[in-house]
Amino acid sequence: MKTVHTEKHRLRASKTELNGGQLVPPFECPERVEHILAELAARRHGEIVAPDAFGLAPVRRIHDGAYLDFLSTCWEEWQAAGYAGEAIATTWPSRRMPLSRPPREIDGRIGYYCLAAETSISGGTWEAAQAAADVALTGQALVAGGARAAFALCRPPGHHAAQDMFGGYCFLNNAAIAAQAFRDQGAARVAVLDVDFHHGNGTQAIFYDRPDVLFLSLHGDPDEAFPYFLGAADETGTGAGEGFNVNYPLAPGTAYPAWAEALENALARIRAYGAEAVVVSLGLDTFKEDPISFFKLESADFTDYGRRIARLGLPTLFVLEGGYAVAEVGINTVNVLTGFEEEA
Amino acid sequence: MKTVHTEKHRLRASKTELNGGQLVPPFECPERVEHILAELAARRHGEIVAPDAFGLAPVRRIHDGAYLDFLSTCWEEWQAAGYAGEAIATTWPSRRMPLSRPPREIDGRIGYYCLAAETSISGGTWEAAQAAADVALTGQALVAGGARAAFALCRPPGHHAAQDMFGGYCFLNNAAIAAQAFRDQGAARVAVLDVDFHHGNGTQAIFYDRPDVLFLSLHGDPDEAFPYFLGAADETGTGAGEGFNVNYPLAPGTAYPAWAEALENALARIRAYGAEAVVVSLGLDTFKEDPISFFKLESADFTDYGRRIARLGLPTLFVLEGGYAVAEVGINTVNVLTGFEEEA
Ligand SMILES: [Zn+2]
Ligand SMILES: [Zn+2]
Repeated sequence: MKTVHTEKHRLRASKTELNGGQLVPPFECPERVEHILAELAARRHGEIVAPDAFGLAPVRRIHDGAYLDFLSTCWEEWQAAGYAGEAIATTWPSRRMPLSRPPREIDGRIGYYCLAAETSISGGTWEAAQAAADVALTGQALVAGGARAAFALCRPPGHHAAQDMFGGYCFLNNAAIAAQAFRDQGAARVAVLDVDFHHGNGTQAIFYDRPDVLFLSLHGDPDEAFPYFLGAADETGTGAGEGFNVNYPLAPGTAYPAWAEALENALARIRAYGAEAVVVSLGLDTFKEDPISFFKLESADFTDYGRRIARLGLPTLFVLEGGYAVAEVGINTVNVLTGFEEEA
Repeated sequence: MKTVHTEKHRLRASKTELNGGQLVPPFECPERVEHILAELAARRHGEIVAPDAFGLAPVRRIHDGAYLDFLSTCWEEWQAAGYAGEAIATTWPSRRMPLSRPPREIDGRIGYYCLAAETSISGGTWEAAQAAADVALTGQALVAGGARAAFALCRPPGHHAAQDMFGGYCFLNNAAIAAQAFRDQGAARVAVLDVDFHHGNGTQAIFYDRPDVLFLSLHGDPDEAFPYFLGAADETGTGAGEGFNVNYPLAPGTAYPAWAEALENALARIRAYGAEAVVVSLGLDTFKEDPISFFKLESADFTDYGRRIARLGLPTLFVLEGGYAVAEVGINTVNVLTGFEEEA
């Protein structure tokens, strides 16, 4: 399968992440992509293609306009306000401060649009996020055009980003934008399968009231893991979307047999749903050595689950999400893709 | 009037505050109290007395038990989890992640109980917060026992702390705890007058549905200033509390004439209300040199408004809140107290 990639991902190069009460170099770093590209090359995996420019129209199908305006001007406003560090939220609407409109001052406004303060905004963030959406949309176009599968090498990732909120290293929800594009081009039913270690809270929030996109997520129990405040098993959708949201929260230490059992349950639901295309939110942070996660998958397990996803027999778009064991992220990514191709 | 003070405030000595995308030494620092004590001594202002120990019963009248449990164990849990820095929230329940229960993991749980991430929790924070509540309650007892006024030299401050949330350098709402004590000891109506630069969002949230405590706050317009998400003029109370919450959001650059006009309006409302006691949330960050605020009060203005508050003719408890122009915080504090005493 083809891989869609652009060097514009390097524009996302923030220097600080708030982690454990300290500002540390971000886990979500440009080197992740280098390792994936190197492994794709070493294993002669297939053509690397550049993204087309789709503009903001398909992005606006998912994200609020005022949120996009905020993302596009945040860094300039933050600098103009005289703040010395990168843009990090410190205050937000809470259950005891429920104001439902964004303040004018950027230090308050960033909190209105933020769901997790580990994520700094800095110069280039907006440009890289737009490029990542283009990467996803280009991959979607390849699949919609007849390719069995494509790999959108998106960076920054997207699955934590909601309609109008960033966080968890995510700004634009690349997978949701691609899923919506399948719908807008005529697919009646689309599934988003999120195999990242972390719950895909943004994707869930975006499609929670819709029956036309089935969202399924395997992830660390939110009682124990980021994003903490979404991802429980009893979140099954609302209104017309009731029954079209499926969460598999899994305990610390979960190894491949239990993980694969949840995956097979999810794949069976995708088959029963009658999806015409599937978008895979491909996070590699289920790997046993991931520094911020607690599952125990081995590298060979990634090959195995690539095969299982192929057995769906559906047009499949892989969209890169997380994965922070940087040295192994390339191996594990390409294992999924080659496992898929062996079986496809 | 007597000043209630304990050296236990020094136990609140966090090293980091998230400000402008950097971790900086906290603006809310122990030196603030030293300057106030020095000025009280220099101007022979009156006796300094130690607080009595009231225990948690009067604190539980305001704060949720699970929140107090969290505060009392947060630092130990944070250290046990292996985090290297002070305890700072990074994720919280938001409009796109509305889960309404605290996660087990401390990195998530701190976000459940936090409304602003500038405030770190570290060793001694809980003990200092309890001591500050004792300081407020001791001052309240002096006033309830017949003193015209008392000054509770509370640190850490309290007015941003809500029933079950900390932030804005505040953990226990000292002023609310004292106001409740007045009520529990028989006062039919109590007023809380918040003259800190910042809106007293915690106090407002605590009493928002109650007619027995009138809350009035003069503060920087939340569209422009922390806490950003509460403090608008149209927040007037709810249910039985409708009409008993009064906000005076004021624009950047507000100087004493406009500020004093708002104060006189507030004082007239307190008179009309028939308050039997008044608790003053005394923040000195309205001073023109305050590093994180934008009002333009001169030191002499503090004397003047102390006089105005005295003209209420009510039993009055002053409770220290903010004020970060450290070198002048003593002068401005004692100016308020001496102005009051000149007129009382
Ligand atoms: Zn992840
Ligand atoms: Zn203040």
